[in-house]
Amino acid sequence: MTAIPPIVSADDHVIEPPDVWTTRLPRKYRDVGPHVVRAPVAEMTFLGGKYDFRMGDDGPAGDWWVYERLAIPHTRLSVAASFEPDDVQVVPVTYDEMRPGCYERDPRLADMDVNGVEASLCFPTFPRFCGQQFLEASDKELALLCVRAYNDWMVDEWCAGSGGRLVPLCLIPLWDPAAAAAEVRRNAARGVRAVCFSELPGNLGLPSVHDAGRFWDPFVAACDETGTVICMHSGSGSKMPSTSPDAPPAVTSTLTHELAEASLADWLFSGLLARYPDVRITYSEGQIGWIPYILARADRVWEHNRGWTDVRDRVPEPPSTYYRGRVYGCFFDDPAGLANLDAIGVDQVTFETDYPHADGTWPHTREVAAKLFADLDDAPTRKICRSNTIELFDLDLTP
Amino acid sequence: MTAIPPIVSADDHVIEPPDVWTTRLPRKYRDVGPHVVRAPVAEMTFLGGKYDFRMGDDGPAGDWWVYERLAIPHTRLSVAASFEPDDVQVVPVTYDEMRPGCYERDPRLADMDVNGVEASLCFPTFPRFCGQQFLEASDKELALLCVRAYNDWMVDEWCAGSGGRLVPLCLIPLWDPAAAAAEVRRNAARGVRAVCFSELPGNLGLPSVHDAGRFWDPFVAACDETGTVICMHSGSGSKMPSTSPDAPPAVTSTLTHELAEASLADWLFSGLLARYPDVRITYSEGQIGWIPYILARADRVWEHNRGWTDVRDRVPEPPSTYYRGRVYGCFFDDPAGLANLDAIGVDQVTFETDYPHADGTWPHTREVAAKLFADLDDAPTRKICRSNTIELFDLDLTP
Repeated sequence: MTAIPPIVSADDHVIEPPDVWTTRLPRKYRDVGPHVVRAPVAEMTFLGGKYDFRMGDDGPAGDWWVYERLAIPHTRLSVAASFEPDDVQVVPVTYDEMRPGCYERDPRLADMDVNGVEASLCFPTFPRFCGQQFLEASDKELALLCVRAYNDWMVDEWCAGSGGRLVPLCLIPLWDPAAAAAEVRRNAARGVRAVCFSELPGNLGLPSVHDAGRFWDPFVAACDETGTVICMHSGSGSKMPSTSPDAPPAVTSTLTHELAEASLADWLFSGLLARYPDVRITYSEGQIGWIPYILARADRVWEHNRGWTDVRDRVPEPPSTYYRGRVYGCFFDDPAGLANLDAIGVDQVTFETDYPHADGTWPHTREVAAKLFADLDDAPTRKICRSNTIELFDLDLTP
Repeated sequence: MTAIPPIVSADDHVIEPPDVWTTRLPRKYRDVGPHVVRAPVAEMTFLGGKYDFRMGDDGPAGDWWVYERLAIPHTRLSVAASFEPDDVQVVPVTYDEMRPGCYERDPRLADMDVNGVEASLCFPTFPRFCGQQFLEASDKELALLCVRAYNDWMVDEWCAGSGGRLVPLCLIPLWDPAAAAAEVRRNAARGVRAVCFSELPGNLGLPSVHDAGRFWDPFVAACDETGTVICMHSGSGSKMPSTSPDAPPAVTSTLTHELAEASLADWLFSGLLARYPDVRITYSEGQIGWIPYILARADRVWEHNRGWTDVRDRVPEPPSTYYRGRVYGCFFDDPAGLANLDAIGVDQVTFETDYPHADGTWPHTREVAAKLFADLDDAPTRKICRSNTIELFDLDLTP
């Protein structure tokens, strides 16, 4: 029986409490900045991999984030740990129906305790996985204040007082790489070593990582310089994979890793990993079973298809060279990945509970781990369950 | 040293000779039906994973297919076996610059001989991988005649007289499932056991495999009834994967397998494999290293995420149930796939040379195979290199 050590989860989620922005924004912004309203959800649609909701007079009550012209309800999918699997549906919820661990620090630490989790890195919810909400806002002065307010709340309230068990993960103003670099440095100065970024910034209407004007270089340079890990959560390009408007949600859910696949191909051929030799990136919730194929294929394309795909000016070595020790995978339940650890690299794989999401394994993460790691020795199991994450984010915990 | 048996390639390509349609269409259609014109290529653009060409007065000469309002030049990429790797570029070519094996039967058999290939299944070129060219045409009466002319040429000229070494692969009129079923039966009656289909018909503006009206059922029923294998080549959904307009072609080339991934997720959750228990599908040029992840993930989604992704009315058993013995992978160079044969299923993997394409291994396929299969026993190597393909397409060759 493989020993499952106390887990350090590299991907969980926090539901922001209602006062993150209302208590931090200047008074003039309190009505237009993000705040919570309780109201009925009149209508829900699913089309092409995306859910949409409309506020109305009748229907089940939900707590909605209201920001500028936007109104988005919380749904059970984002707080799935509060419900039994059969009841995890895209149905609106209020804060009262959520487990308090979704949005409050001390109940979260208690939920981690029952699940054998020592420490946890949490992605944002209302801002979306890399702060797209603020990118899409019209008032960019307010949006920058919102980004900073989130980061201050993350550091000063969510993580402070957790004894190092909640690991800070900050946002950047995606629309301004110089301001993003400044925000990375401001947070690094107070000990933050993780920043959210988009797996596919082109999908957000931003320049891609291939941009000829090197749009993202100031941001990546700041991460490289400060040892800040670029964390890209599946879905941070806003578009989810879908094969057709009538494809069931199961297709989208099965194909979510294609976002990380596409992003890894982008980064390997972008030249960014060659230009910034210390920067590290991680694919949160990306799973890992697909990585060996992509590495072998990228190297073959670089070599065999060079006549029409030459990228040697930007990528002087075979692409997999830049993967080693620089790109971290992250999974919650991936037997196909664990069967390929040698090809993936046992030192660059991290584990997650995905609390409180629908794919999450809480409160059974230890049982899932015991099953997943049954054929693995204690040493690699420990690396994946905690040491790799501790080293990646430079945490003050015993590896 | 693993013995490499005479190879039966499950995916190669034929360049149609100029007279396929001109000699078969009724006289009134000979000018508007597909025919070849030699003219300069004035301009080439690459955007979002797609090349476009414009005919002009100046520039290198190319042989163009002209059909209705369409004009498309042959390029080196489609006849890459005619050039050294560094010279394989998206540059126009004439028939005179191609190896005759690209478009003539006897030189093709000679090219197969030097490459250790006993038999070969060839996909179309001008019609595109599943006949999208005829789907997009405006005169559908002509288009149906074009589909039938191609199939007649495939059976009567390309394959006849090859002693069973060229395996017929036919087209359907994609826009009419009843006519498609009739064409499957017409070809099955003359011994054809393979038909081209689109990996993602929704991308072609057609109903998806999830269609509530069961649009594709007549076609799939005809395949099920006649033992005709549904062959889906990467790219048969017309859209190639791309992360952004400025992503280099290397990204698209690395991510091509995402089309097969998406299609497999579609088929597994469509219910078609449950409704038609004998039909078999294959992902030509899809590679195989990604299959174990998709199977494990689809089963987990079916089980764990059932609250919001329930498909049990259509898919009563875990999705991987329908994969076993029904879905065939096909690869040209995929060490990550070979390391996972147990999970993929050694009986449902086929090998290809991809002659004469840019990813093709001609004339070194045996050397590539010897390297790929070095750690595999003779028995599984023989299955992959020939027996599986012989059994899949019911060929009159020694397994």
